[in-house]
Amino acid sequence: MKIALYPGTFDPITYGHIDVIERATQLFDHLYVVIAINSKKTPLFSTEERIELAEKSLLHLNNVSVVSHNGLLVDYAKNIKASAIVRGVRAVTDFEYELQIAQMNRKIEPSISTIFLMPHEKYSYLNSSIVRELARYHQNVDEFVSLVVSEALRNKNKKV
Amino acid sequence: MKIALYPGTFDPITYGHIDVIERATQLFDHLYVVIAINSKKTPLFSTEERIELAEKSLLHLNNVSVVSHNGLLVDYAKNIKASAIVRGVRAVTDFEYELQIAQMNRKIEPSISTIFLMPHEKYSYLNSSIVRELARYHQNVDEFVSLVVSEALRNKNKKV
Amino acid sequence: MKIALYPGTFDPITYGHIDVIERATQLFDHLYVVIAINSKKTPLFSTEERIELAEKSLLHLNNVSVVSHNGLLVDYAKNIKASAIVRGVRAVTDFEYELQIAQMNRKIEPSISTIFLMPHEKYSYLNSSIVRELARYHQNVDEFVSLVVSEALRNKNKKV
Amino acid sequence: MKIALYPGTFDPITYGHIDVIERATQLFDHLYVVIAINSKKTPLFSTEERIELAEKSLLHLNNVSVVSHNGLLVDYAKNIKASAIVRGVRAVTDFEYELQIAQMNRKIEPSISTIFLMPHEKYSYLNSSIVRELARYHQNVDEFVSLVVSEALRNKNKKV
Amino acid sequence: MKIALYPGTFDPITYGHIDVIERATQLFDHLYVVIAINSKKTPLFSTEERIELAEKSLLHLNNVSVVSHNGLLVDYAKNIKASAIVRGVRAVTDFEYELQIAQMNRKIEPSISTIFLMPHEKYSYLNSSIVRELARYHQNVDEFVSLVVSEALRNKNKKV
Amino acid sequence: MKIALYPGTFDPITYGHIDVIERATQLFDHLYVVIAINSKKTPLFSTEERIELAEKSLLHLNNVSVVSHNGLLVDYAKNIKASAIVRGVRAVTDFEYELQIAQMNRKIEPSISTIFLMPHEKYSYLNSSIVRELARYHQNVDEFVSLVVSEALRNKNKKV
Repeated sequence: MKIALYPGTFDPITYGHIDVIERATQLFDHLYVVIAINSKKTPLFSTEERIELAEKSLLHLNNVSVVSHNGLLVDYAKNIKASAIVRGVRAVTDFEYELQIAQMNRKIEPSISTIFLMPHEKYSYLNSSIVRELARYHQNVDEFVSLVVSEALRNKNKKV
Repeated sequence: MKIALYPGTFDPITYGHIDVIERATQLFDHLYVVIAINSKKTPLFSTEERIELAEKSLLHLNNVSVVSHNGLLVDYAKNIKASAIVRGVRAVTDFEYELQIAQMNRKIEPSISTIFLMPHEKYSYLNSSIVRELARYHQNVDEFVSLVVSEALRNKNKKV
Repeated sequence: MKIALYPGTFDPITYGHIDVIERATQLFDHLYVVIAINSKKTPLFSTEERIELAEKSLLHLNNVSVVSHNGLLVDYAKNIKASAIVRGVRAVTDFEYELQIAQMNRKIEPSISTIFLMPHEKYSYLNSSIVRELARYHQNVDEFVSLVVSEALRNKNKKV
Repeated sequence: MKIALYPGTFDPITYGHIDVIERATQLFDHLYVVIAINSKKTPLFSTEERIELAEKSLLHLNNVSVVSHNGLLVDYAKNIKASAIVRGVRAVTDFEYELQIAQMNRKIEPSISTIFLMPHEKYSYLNSSIVRELARYHQNVDEFVSLVVSEALRNKNKKV
Repeated sequence: MKIALYPGTFDPITYGHIDVIERATQLFDHLYVVIAINSKKTPLFSTEERIELAEKSLLHLNNVSVVSHNGLLVDYAKNIKASAIVRGVRAVTDFEYELQIAQMNRKIEPSISTIFLMPHEKYSYLNSSIVRELARYHQNVDEFVSLVVSEALRNKNKKV
Repeated sequence: MKIALYPGTFDPITYGHIDVIERATQLFDHLYVVIAINSKKTPLFSTEERIELAEKSLLHLNNVSVVSHNGLLVDYAKNIKASAIVRGVRAVTDFEYELQIAQMNRKIEPSISTIFLMPHEKYSYLNSSIVRELARYHQNVDEFVSLVVSEALRNKNKKV
């Protein structure tokens, strides 16, 4: 059984992420979506919220699990016997940073490969930060995120 | 069974290619190395020679086939029921071109994903053209290509 | 009256070009599409064919003229009293080369500005060379070029 | 009448900005310089100071207005009936980020085009942050900013 | 006597830095390693610690001095009569930023050249921030930093 | 004595090259300008002409020699006991290719360092190919090349 993991902040999950996840679930037997518990940046959504939004946005896929992780990604990958780390790359400047991380991960654990997948070109400009910004100005974001996420964004921007 | 293909000119196959192939054979059940019969550029080695050098350099792997192909890659991929096209990317300028090709291939055949793999950092500067150049000046290339390839390069440069 | 020109090889004109042209015709009073008579590369379509295909693909726009030119672009721009040279940019590596050309043109004729426009993201991977390649393998290209162009491509590939 | 806007932080306005503004005022009938009231970053100069410095540095141009704005840029552009958003691009890494923003803005409001202009090559290294840094160390910045700005910078660095 | 300086944060010094330093000491008669007293970012190691770790990691080189500096680098370079500022560049995105800084430094003081050196490809992914991250998760970093630095990192992560 | 070499095609030498050469002659005791006898591309000027134009454009510098070379650059560098290969880099896409060549040269001969120098920003768009193009259309190129070169270009374009 080939296992892969797809790490990220997912604050919140977008259709760009989901496109990469759908591709990855066709290439691997099981995919773990690994949500980083990042202590430096303060996310808009809590870890629990980000897990719930991802799970609800991925109900149509049956070989995906959503988990959270704090620590070195490669350690987690070894524990779940993953053979690959999946990364979505849209742009050249993304890619250079990703190559550096991938080289370092390969050094730490040579048995795990990083593979880069490209989201559909209609999501090539999309990222979570732009979606949060649009939602903050009460812009409709239904083209970019699933319904549960757009509702959660509306609620966040009401409360604040 | 997950099948992938790895297209290229392989004029000749280098340790950079082999590193990508070894990674890909761990991720997929079978890998086709597809040597392009490129009518525009005149390669140093004929199609038959490039196939033979690739086969002899990949004897240690048992889930790889070396084939040649003339035509649209995506058609070939569909015929052999491949779910992925594998590309090695070392550098940012490579990557942008690769993204364009991958977008177009995705448009033509959405069911096939392009995945990008990174060769070991010690091959990050390596390509077939640099190897041919070194061999032309009788430089030792054993660090960059397998023994059968370095011998074939020596023979080519004797004859010319 | 603000006049601009949009230079290129247009071998053949694609929907990516047309998207840039439509944008430019909204920003300027008149746009000249300037087809380069490039003596170095041998185009698939002759200058006359490229003009005809561009004209027929742009019939829906009434402030565009299609012309051909051999020589220094900036000289032509001065003759037609253009205030801007329009360039479409899809990618980072394109852009760097374009910046160099634009700097040089600015040096030669400071009164003319180069402006960069971005085609729709659905054409971000598209260029004439990919379209010619697809047509060569009898792939349907109706998504990428106008009907007159796709017919012309089919005829070229019959004859050859 | 063709209207454009040129958004930015302008903390403070430099000769690089002014070069782009001068070019844009030749291409459009009226240009709005839109100063972002950015709540995240703390600018060196207040919104009012940044407006005043921009206005005093642009007295030689009679089709420019300096305004400030808090919110979604595209909404503002629609309100003032702008047909274009102007961005200066000096470098490749700038450009990739700008393309993403432009794609998103095009998605939100397809009728407005983003156009990229290139500042004079003698300002290709210049940005407001480098100017603030130089002024902090009491370096002469008269080559990079107008006299009102260099005086304002001297005053800031006295007070602190 | 040709003098150069090599500025940076060195939080902490890595084998990537040391590789650049070794190269620079062969090209120049004396090299100053200039540790920036950066008031904005809070480094993991204090200025004194960073100097000590650099000095102890460079004991094998006899034409290097480690100093710290707060202020404009070019002023310091003039004081010590340096003819060159040395920068290590591993990647394209690094490089663009470095070019901008170098252009500005050349403007301020035309007599001083910035020269870019490339670390060994085996350090092409390495930077201080990745090393700090690895050490935080108690990963062995002996391949990336000298023994005094790896010990200092272990001590930091015990205390916290 | 520190010796460096500066390789290139120099078809013809421009003020961008000369700027890099002037910088390099301040950093090294002697600089060899090494003109490649490139058998693949057909240069506008013969090897002898390129040597003569370079020599006449560099008369003001007394620690430079102009030579030509056919073969592996690193072999030549070892013969003349050079400690450095100098390369001018203006742009990001240049740079990535240069890094690959430099890595390969370092592999072949670790004792020789490649150093990258940046030409003055006013030459950031300049290259020999643009100069040849301008001269072909009888454009004045005195801003870009020395008088001997601009005269040689005028003569070439008369004869053709």
